[in-house]
Amino acid sequence: MKKRSADKPRETQNAKQKTKRNAFYAQSGGVTAVINASAAGVIETARAHKDKIGAVYAGRNGILGALTEDLIDTSHESVGDIKALKHTPSGAFGSCRYKLKGIDESRAQYERLIEVFRAHDIGYFFYNGGNDSADTCLKVSQIAEKLGYPLQAIHVPKTVDNDLVLTDNCPGFGSVAKYVATSMREAAFDVASMAKTSTQIFVLEVMGRHAGWITAAVGLAADKDTPIPLLLLFPEIAFDETKFLTAVRNKVDTFGYCCIGVSEGLRDASGKLMAEAGTRDAFGHAQLGGIGPQIAQLIKAKLGCKYHWAVADYLQRAARHLASKTDLEQSYAVGRAAVKLALAGHNAVMPAIVRTSETPYRWKIEPMALAKIANHEKMLPKNFITRDGYGITDKARAYLTPLIRGEAPPPFKDGVPRYVRLKNVAVPKKLKAAFVP
Amino acid sequence: MKKRSADKPRETQNAKQKTKRNAFYAQSGGVTAVINASAAGVIETARAHKDKIGAVYAGRNGILGALTEDLIDTSHESVGDIKALKHTPSGAFGSCRYKLKGIDESRAQYERLIEVFRAHDIGYFFYNGGNDSADTCLKVSQIAEKLGYPLQAIHVPKTVDNDLVLTDNCPGFGSVAKYVATSMREAAFDVASMAKTSTQIFVLEVMGRHAGWITAAVGLAADKDTPIPLLLLFPEIAFDETKFLTAVRNKVDTFGYCCIGVSEGLRDASGKLMAEAGTRDAFGHAQLGGIGPQIAQLIKAKLGCKYHWAVADYLQRAARHLASKTDLEQSYAVGRAAVKLALAGHNAVMPAIVRTSETPYRWKIEPMALAKIANHEKMLPKNFITRDGYGITDKARAYLTPLIRGEAPPPFKDGVPRYVRLKNVAVPKKLKAAFVP
Repeated sequence: MKKRSADKPRETQNAKQKTKRNAFYAQSGGVTAVINASAAGVIETARAHKDKIGAVYAGRNGILGALTEDLIDTSHESVGDIKALKHTPSGAFGSCRYKLKGIDESRAQYERLIEVFRAHDIGYFFYNGGNDSADTCLKVSQIAEKLGYPLQAIHVPKTVDNDLVLTDNCPGFGSVAKYVATSMREAAFDVASMAKTSTQIFVLEVMGRHAGWITAAVGLAADKDTPIPLLLLFPEIAFDETKFLTAVRNKVDTFGYCCIGVSEGLRDASGKLMAEAGTRDAFGHAQLGGIGPQIAQLIKAKLGCKYHWAVADYLQRAARHLASKTDLEQSYAVGRAAVKLALAGHNAVMPAIVRTSETPYRWKIEPMALAKIANHEKMLPKNFITRDGYGITDKARAYLTPLIRGEAPPPFKDGVPRYVRLKNVAVPKKLKAAFVP
Repeated sequence: MKKRSADKPRETQNAKQKTKRNAFYAQSGGVTAVINASAAGVIETARAHKDKIGAVYAGRNGILGALTEDLIDTSHESVGDIKALKHTPSGAFGSCRYKLKGIDESRAQYERLIEVFRAHDIGYFFYNGGNDSADTCLKVSQIAEKLGYPLQAIHVPKTVDNDLVLTDNCPGFGSVAKYVATSMREAAFDVASMAKTSTQIFVLEVMGRHAGWITAAVGLAADKDTPIPLLLLFPEIAFDETKFLTAVRNKVDTFGYCCIGVSEGLRDASGKLMAEAGTRDAFGHAQLGGIGPQIAQLIKAKLGCKYHWAVADYLQRAARHLASKTDLEQSYAVGRAAVKLALAGHNAVMPAIVRTSETPYRWKIEPMALAKIANHEKMLPKNFITRDGYGITDKARAYLTPLIRGEAPPPFKDGVPRYVRLKNVAVPKKLKAAFVP
């Protein structure tokens, strides 16, 4: 936290805990290059307040670990290993895609959570995830209150999709943004070299199911020093084949080649996902992939240009070797702030990143009420997309650039990054009944 | 060069040039993260020998630039910009896929080359490429001799495929190897986090048309400190669906997930490319891509596992941000050695990398005769592949590891690498007749 404002309680809250209680931390949904930095922020800050917080228990495979009483005692991890989480991608305790529904619908699950928390004297619930998790975190706080169980539930923001409201940006996004911008720039240099006799079209498919934040970040590949003939296909804009092919043709005629960044969530005029793979994840979201090659083949068929395409998929969100330093710092800071907020008596809040200045970029952390965050989605503002629908505006650039600034490479050994693997020692179970989630 | 041995002439050669003559440099075939370092090696070394070498002219878009007399005068580039080539991926002067055939078949092309060289007083021909280019370089040297035109032709090795013979490895390969090993390690950490409720299978498709060098490098993602359930599908080993699915099933049962590195050149039992895209490049090679998703979908269909897949395509060979320092040094060294060899009177040779010690890794550069290199292909040795066909042996590890060691990141500005774009000023044409290649 850059300022102390986050320590000022804003929400109605459970009474401050007088006695020392344990904390529970879990990672939820798709992992990122820097979510473990948030875990380090939570654990290191809790360890610095041993008068208030006992052990930090982590859920093995996220909330599933809480439901099945499969808890990890992070006390067994060395100071060095917890520190190493800052340079290790993925979810060190395991994450999961498991959505708790409404309290009435999933009552048994919510009650089980409280039962497990009670058995292990959990007074603090830190839930590290995106939109769905913010909703779960809020509901856990509500059920605890209903059942008269004293619990402070704090949501720690994380999502490469950058679609949480009331925060300047979401930890995890900046590193993906840096990866896709860098990768597209590098590929564009490659294509420019080959275009005379070979590849004229390069398509990079990127993540971002509903909101075009990652697609917009591809636009950072080009700037005044490094112009690149680049077209972006945003999920917010219905695909218009004729208009798009004309735009591609113009780029190829003018520059000899054309690079295209396309969102996995691109839709046609009827609103149908163009790359629907047919499978759905546990949240009911369609599993996407394959629009990149589809766009490339369309251009080949209609314009006859030779193409290459790449689908970075997990590489983009796991690429800790290319993480944004800003993103890393913010990821750690929200973990740290979550604990500070809990200690200050907050409940049902999320430490949000507030941009206090754009040039130079300055930010601080403030608590925001989960009730105002859950079930909202922050879409790419219209004025971030150029009038033709294929590029980003200066406004978008001003917003995005600070988020990818700075490098923070991990240590390497024998040419590859050295990432930590924790011991993940289980906490002995206390409950007799098993629970099948 | 680590030793002076490269300076001892070995081949029959044209008489040493008494007067100062110009040099021609061209990039051929697929570009890499470090081919521009070879260009820097050539240009900086030539500039250091102004008594013998006049201007270095580069072919715009490779050998096409020579055929069409579209030459770039590198003298216009600043010392700083030439130095910046060391951290800039792609081919700074443009490359091409244009294959000169046999001398009889392509006689007009070869004669045109000599005509252009004569018009611009080119005494040194530096050709930076892979197998096809080694062959062209040799033929250019032969036609020059036939026509009585004094020319020294030196091939500068480059190919991510690592398939040139008589050299320990090929500049460009080490950086791709580092990229695929790092990317697979990062993705494996991601999948491990998600496997409990979501993705159990991750497939990464990599380059390497005939030889499994890059596929083998994926194996470096796992080591003693970082075990990963990993299966490799080499182009050298016919795909056996039943055996493969059993291996995948075993990994998933034992570890909860499985990562797969697959070569774009994977073949079935009949020898047919499994991902044949139907298009062919100028060399007559099939354009591949798509075996990654194919393998993933097979596993889903037969084993029911949820999958993700990535096709890195150009990202892997353009990723200067993750280049191997060893590769970078060797790329520069072969460029430098090419000029030194020319000045020492060599002709029709290639500066090859010779491994003089494995632990610690030591290497030197020696000239090798192009006649022994052209039209040969170095395949992955059988003892580099484990008995089951899905992994790499300790021998492979010992060979590969030094090649990916060391980091050499480019400068970043505003979160993205800052790569140089040269002025590429054209040399005034001297020939009247145009030439249509």
